[in-house]
Amino acid sequence: MFKATLEKIVNETPAAVGAVLMGYDGIAIEQFFLDSDDIDLQLVALEYSNIIKEIRHTAEVLGTGELQEVTIKSGRYYVVIHALTDDYFVALTIKRDGNLGKGRYLILREAANLRMALL
Amino acid sequence: MFKATLEKIVNETPAAVGAVLMGYDGIAIEQFFLDSDDIDLQLVALEYSNIIKEIRHTAEVLGTGELQEVTIKSGRYYVVIHALTDDYFVALTIKRDGNLGKGRYLILREAANLRMALL
Repeated sequence: MFKATLEKIVNETPAAVGAVLMGYDGIAIEQFFLDSDDIDLQLVALEYSNIIKEIRHTAEVLGTGELQEVTIKSGRYYVVIHALTDDYFVALTIKRDGNLGKGRYLILREAANLRMALL
Repeated sequence: MFKATLEKIVNETPAAVGAVLMGYDGIAIEQFFLDSDDIDLQLVALEYSNIIKEIRHTAEVLGTGELQEVTIKSGRYYVVIHALTDDYFVALTIKRDGNLGKGRYLILREAANLRMALL
């Protein structure tokens, strides 16, 4: 079920590269990547989890409420990281000529399903 | 000049709380906060820099191109972090009932001025 949902998000988002469902411990549950030629998937997963751990920690320290979503814009990619439960999140990577808004919408649309399947 | 620019960004963004111009070393150059009742400014600055350092590191490791912008959505706030130079970035905090799009636009509009003043 996880793979099908990730695949749907990636396929319906213009210029998406891939999506991963993973724990804050840095271990991926499932992933779907269209074109991983120049991307080290394990490294991506580990780095995502480091970032989101740091941001979660920050939200706690600052008392700014629970972390919900992080969007990163770099020279080549957008990355959308969406918190699902206390233990898991989903991350979507999109090329810069892609559609960030569509990707965010699809993650929001599928988040409830992913969350229910995780519990 | 820095203070006036930060003040302009905060005042023109509905429900903005404050903005800070700081180095990746965690030291703020300038800041402007409207309502800091329940926010520890030094802590905010330090935490921002930790996050953006982690994300910069990630962009380097993954070869995803230079970091440009990070948006964080938590229970109570949006935070927009915008990279200015190799050494400095600007961060804007907005309450959740505020206007994230306006804040991002204003930062983009002022980024060139801030960048020129920093060099």
